[in-house]
Amino acid sequence: MSQNGLRYRDLLAEELAEVDHLLLGVHRLQEGVSPLIREALGRLVMSGGKRLRPALALLSTYLYGEALPPQAYPVAASLEMLHTATLIHDDLLDHAEVRRGHRTLNTRWTMGATVLGGDLAFSWAANLVAQGDNTMLVRRFAETLGTICNGELNQLFHGRGKVPTVDAYYARIFAKTGSLFQLAMEVGPWLRRRPREEIQRLGDFGRSLGIAFQIADDVLDFMGDEATLGKPVGGDLRQGLVTLPVLYYLESHPHEAHLRHILAQVKEGRAPDEETVQALVLDLRHSDAAERAMATAEQHIEKALAQLAAYPPSPYRAALEEIARFAVRRRY
Amino acid sequence: MSQNGLRYRDLLAEELAEVDHLLLGVHRLQEGVSPLIREALGRLVMSGGKRLRPALALLSTYLYGEALPPQAYPVAASLEMLHTATLIHDDLLDHAEVRRGHRTLNTRWTMGATVLGGDLAFSWAANLVAQGDNTMLVRRFAETLGTICNGELNQLFHGRGKVPTVDAYYARIFAKTGSLFQLAMEVGPWLRRRPREEIQRLGDFGRSLGIAFQIADDVLDFMGDEATLGKPVGGDLRQGLVTLPVLYYLESHPHEAHLRHILAQVKEGRAPDEETVQALVLDLRHSDAAERAMATAEQHIEKALAQLAAYPPSPYRAALEEIARFAVRRRY
Repeated sequence: MSQNGLRYRDLLAEELAEVDHLLLGVHRLQEGVSPLIREALGRLVMSGGKRLRPALALLSTYLYGEALPPQAYPVAASLEMLHTATLIHDDLLDHAEVRRGHRTLNTRWTMGATVLGGDLAFSWAANLVAQGDNTMLVRRFAETLGTICNGELNQLFHGRGKVPTVDAYYARIFAKTGSLFQLAMEVGPWLRRRPREEIQRLGDFGRSLGIAFQIADDVLDFMGDEATLGKPVGGDLRQGLVTLPVLYYLESHPHEAHLRHILAQVKEGRAPDEETVQALVLDLRHSDAAERAMATAEQHIEKALAQLAAYPPSPYRAALEEIARFAVRRRY
Repeated sequence: MSQNGLRYRDLLAEELAEVDHLLLGVHRLQEGVSPLIREALGRLVMSGGKRLRPALALLSTYLYGEALPPQAYPVAASLEMLHTATLIHDDLLDHAEVRRGHRTLNTRWTMGATVLGGDLAFSWAANLVAQGDNTMLVRRFAETLGTICNGELNQLFHGRGKVPTVDAYYARIFAKTGSLFQLAMEVGPWLRRRPREEIQRLGDFGRSLGIAFQIADDVLDFMGDEATLGKPVGGDLRQGLVTLPVLYYLESHPHEAHLRHILAQVKEGRAPDEETVQALVLDLRHSDAAERAMATAEQHIEKALAQLAAYPPSPYRAALEEIARFAVRRRY
């Protein structure tokens, strides 16, 4: 996904540079981090992230006025670090080899070192959020990490190789993406000490945006081209993950056989055979499943945008609106 | 290690029951934790821990007066949860099969689920410490987690299969045990908003206690009997970990050959042969290495106890003194 031209990158150029500065210096939070560890984790944090989560945190804070409280920087940085830490462990679990165009930590380090590297990144994220000097934000940060981990555990124990209900699908993508977007958008009202209903309102914007974002991601997994995606299409299917476009496809093709075959193989702990995966990907591409899923994502974006109407027009609100519209206009 | 008769368990019976109550209810911090996950993590947290770290936190708070601030409970619980989370990942890395007399999570769950289970426990620990409503304590908590992980990473990348300097040995055991004991003892002065020198003083007590405790543990690894230890002696050697008694033994036996053989095998990624491990264990048992190491541990305890002299006598100070003396009187 290319986000050239998205205005938040210009609007927040200085602020995001400060966030990067904090992320790069984070190893100084304790003594004795060896250059090897520093460089490996530093490269990971700095490699090509869109800084979308920090940007949401900064924009939500700017919705309440121009003077940015200094705590906004470490808190914004903490969200990126938390995201990075969860990706380190995810890539280990998924045996992923490439992330953001670079080799993953698990391809270069042992399993043990990768686990500890992720843990170290968690500690840095916690340290950064604590610098925000707001214990309620720390609690929300911890809750969000819990939601993410619990969602993945539920997926491992109860989800893989199964056709989920639509509700279970939404619970999973809320845990995976929606929860951290929600937290990012809550940062502003928490730091500005605004009343609960404003935390709720901007949190709702974040959650709906995150859910739309993830649906679009799940559609891209079928419809994208491998060059743009940087990974083969059908990756979710290969892991036995059934996403919204597949659920929609099943509605109109209740006797679909490829999927049953794939899920049976995943359940037995085998890699599904490539021919069947490719066949199902093609069927999906030729159906209206992607279109229907994107229409659903757009509904979530409309819901998100409605929350912003309560705020006076500003470049910051406009940037948030642009991010929301862009989330469902990604090319494939 | 049996701690029957240690007075802190009676003195803090009610407080530690409240800590257990918080630990058991911690899964309620987010929705949708499945019974399977709840039971597995709950069993781990509740199985036979001595609650030494929570006890230190509570005792350090009581040094400043009888009325315990309610924040002391979740903070004390957070230390036990943090300790549990690090053990989950440690046991995974070490392929340990038994912990506190129970099968480890990694023997029952896949690698991926065990990683996520530890992460979930980290999130609960962070949530509990945030309930202490003191962001400096959260930062110290995060720093301590960072110190622990970084110490283990350094060990993995730079330490295993090598004879460390004495300084490197101390850096490792500070990271492994001293840092969390230090944090536990800082809880009182942080929650009571005492000046920096008191945080320093009680932190020093905790650090010295933790270091003595770990030296005693390292001695036990050679001198203990397998029934009491619950694991085979020489476990550190088998992992290529050179501890203080071995360093002392090498001083008087510079041409020792077994160790070189063991470390060469570990470096090649092999398990050292059992005969050589047993031979070195016997040599150590028949030397004065254990005695010398315990004498060093006692010196650290004396240093720790000197810090307590600044506080008026009380049952809480007496309980801390007893814990300190007990740390180096463990039977083998």
